Amino acid sequence: MRTKAAVAVEAGKPLQIMEVNLEGPKKGEVLIEIKATGVCHTDEFTLSGADPEGLFPSILGHEGAGVVIEVGEGVTTLKPGDHVIPLYTPECGECYSCLSGKTNLCTAIRNTQGQGLMPDGTTRFSMLDGTPIYHYMGCSTFANHTVMPEIALAKVRDDAPFDKICYIGCGVTTGIGSVINTAGVEIGSTAAVFGLGGIGLNVIQGLRMAGADMIIGVDLNDDKEEMARKFGMTHFVNPKKIEGTVVQEIVKLTQTEKDHIGGVDYSFDATGNVQVMRDALECSHRGWGVSVVIGVAPAGAEISTRPFQLVTGRVWKGTAFGGAKGRTDVPKFVDWYMDGKIEIDPMITHTMPLEDINNAFDLMHKGESIRSVVIY
Amino acid sequence: MRTKAAVAVEAGKPLQIMEVNLEGPKKGEVLIEIKATGVCHTDEFTLSGADPEGLFPSILGHEGAGVVIEVGEGVTTLKPGDHVIPLYTPECGECYSCLSGKTNLCTAIRNTQGQGLMPDGTTRFSMLDGTPIYHYMGCSTFANHTVMPEIALAKVRDDAPFDKICYIGCGVTTGIGSVINTAGVEIGSTAAVFGLGGIGLNVIQGLRMAGADMIIGVDLNDDKEEMARKFGMTHFVNPKKIEGTVVQEIVKLTQTEKDHIGGVDYSFDATGNVQVMRDALECSHRGWGVSVVIGVAPAGAEISTRPFQLVTGRVWKGTAFGGAKGRTDVPKFVDWYMDGKIEIDPMITHTMPLEDINNAFDLMHKGESIRSVVIY
Ligand SMILES: [Zn+2]
Ligand SMILES: [Zn+2]
Ligand SMILES: [Zn+2]
Ligand SMILES: [Zn+2]
Repeated sequence: MRTKAAVAVEAGKPLQIMEVNLEGPKKGEVLIEIKATGVCHTDEFTLSGADPEGLFPSILGHEGAGVVIEVGEGVTTLKPGDHVIPLYTPECGECYSCLSGKTNLCTAIRNTQGQGLMPDGTTRFSMLDGTPIYHYMGCSTFANHTVMPEIALAKVRDDAPFDKICYIGCGVTTGIGSVINTAGVEIGSTAAVFGLGGIGLNVIQGLRMAGADMIIGVDLNDDKEEMARKFGMTHFVNPKKIEGTVVQEIVKLTQTEKDHIGGVDYSFDATGNVQVMRDALECSHRGWGVSVVIGVAPAGAEISTRPFQLVTGRVWKGTAFGGAKGRTDVPKFVDWYMDGKIEIDPMITHTMPLEDINNAFDLMHKGESIRSVVIY
Repeated sequence: MRTKAAVAVEAGKPLQIMEVNLEGPKKGEVLIEIKATGVCHTDEFTLSGADPEGLFPSILGHEGAGVVIEVGEGVTTLKPGDHVIPLYTPECGECYSCLSGKTNLCTAIRNTQGQGLMPDGTTRFSMLDGTPIYHYMGCSTFANHTVMPEIALAKVRDDAPFDKICYIGCGVTTGIGSVINTAGVEIGSTAAVFGLGGIGLNVIQGLRMAGADMIIGVDLNDDKEEMARKFGMTHFVNPKKIEGTVVQEIVKLTQTEKDHIGGVDYSFDATGNVQVMRDALECSHRGWGVSVVIGVAPAGAEISTRPFQLVTGRVWKGTAFGGAKGRTDVPKFVDWYMDGKIEIDPMITHTMPLEDINNAFDLMHKGESIRSVVIY
């Protein structure tokens, strides 16, 4: 069949809207009509050429929602008409990682996915001249139709709006999941969130859900404060407007009559800046502070600290897709949205048709959007 | 009173055996007769001058066992005749850290202890000419008698031999505790231990106790293999004698038909070398590997890695005194030794009188001892 897609033809160039060929689903695969897709920083990272593993030409996009059109041989858990959210972290339930019960990082299709291919080592997309087009993060939601493995699709309820729940395919789950799955925040905790973009806001609403007492947001841009407060931030720190370091400031904010040491119980980096990741670790509490790296760092960048920070009880962790097991957890997140336990609508600041998708990147560069969503 | 001590008069110089003045215990303090003391790398670190917080003149030693001689005002939990192990990490049970239940890093006397002083800000030791002598890690077990706060003494059973259980005051508890308190190793786990000195051997016996299936020891010295196998090591890697990196070697050793990824569930650095700390993290399993820093790094040294290591599920932690709460846990460790659950005797390779304590440092430098113990 043919479908319409925004193709990343070359690093650093705008996406090109074009008709492309799409082969039908092979064994274990499913054809999806994408109804809406978010445009995420990770798409931008790859499109810019900064991602050393970026492949071109490819169809980017990994934050979608859609409807099953056709299932391939052997597909048993999905049928035409089912509403689904694509998962860049699949959940096969059978690989060593899935069976461990200790991680969401399913490895069933890891190798081919990293090479922009379906599990059989080929692509379903091609240019009209026959040139193969790589898949992206196993999803390629910047196409009106896409083919994905069954294990990489979460079935969700039918009454949830595509243009909102697509965000659960990445940002919402990453942010909230990092709080509840990776950090395991308890009621009454103190926390700091570095970076008040989309991920940071979702970390904040995760902390609010988890019952944190003190939620300190850190951002260089004062304009982020208002929205973050709406999601539950209790204190705002702009590192450009304080005396001393941000670590000192957070220690000061958290010191109490009983606790002369100070520091937050949990901290989260949602910036991708390795110096900020260090600050996040070092502002966490001596003895038990847990710091979670969420942001994607530039290629080759390294985090560092004195080992004394760890020896005195801080824990350095990271999260991918918020530690969520996609097929199991994503439908729950959709329920939470529909039940009003989590908010998404105010974070979808812009919507547009596929033809205008390059505007979404412009809005991101200018810092004007939290999330832009393409509606097909 | 007067007592005999080995005084660290100056950085980089041998200890000097001399008579010193010792004031009696003040409020909340206890006078101890030290019966035996281990000589630890941390003593050597400070004596060498490498420790930027080292103070001179001081009486080093922090791995002792002895008997209560006299208690100061208000001491209620100890009486003359009690057998005790000094704790460089006290357990007051009342500070914010102790009450948290989340850390062993009691802060009740942290500031004065770091300054080589008793909690009232003075020293009990002085030279015969009146010059004050600093305490060390709150213990100063290189003196035949010492004064310590009640909260820094663990009462232990009377029938345990001082010349063995003194080692529980540091190395044994640090090594075993890092396994059971900090890492929380489960039965059937795989583990790697970097550095097969005293701490490493205790990590290994901790892993054996915890029921680990595979215990990989890593050391540049083949002579360490035999003893480590006696304590439970199942595989030995000498990084000088393999092709490829130690991380690759450990991944290879742990890959199975079911697990193509490989890597250990838990890793421990007992070297203090920051490059080794990085290897320890990176050889741990994608998705859930936990790496524990035990070794003390040189001043100013930093650990680093790509944040991708954390984002893909590895956890970087550290441990001080093995995460053990001294007054609560140390008596249990003594019971375990007396019950034969843990071994200490083979690790005490040398004993000597206080007069020969400088030999203990020589043996350490030459790598000939696991642990030297001074018997008073
Ligand atoms: Zn994303
Ligand atoms: Zn799997
Ligand atoms: Zn020690
Ligand atoms: Zn305490």
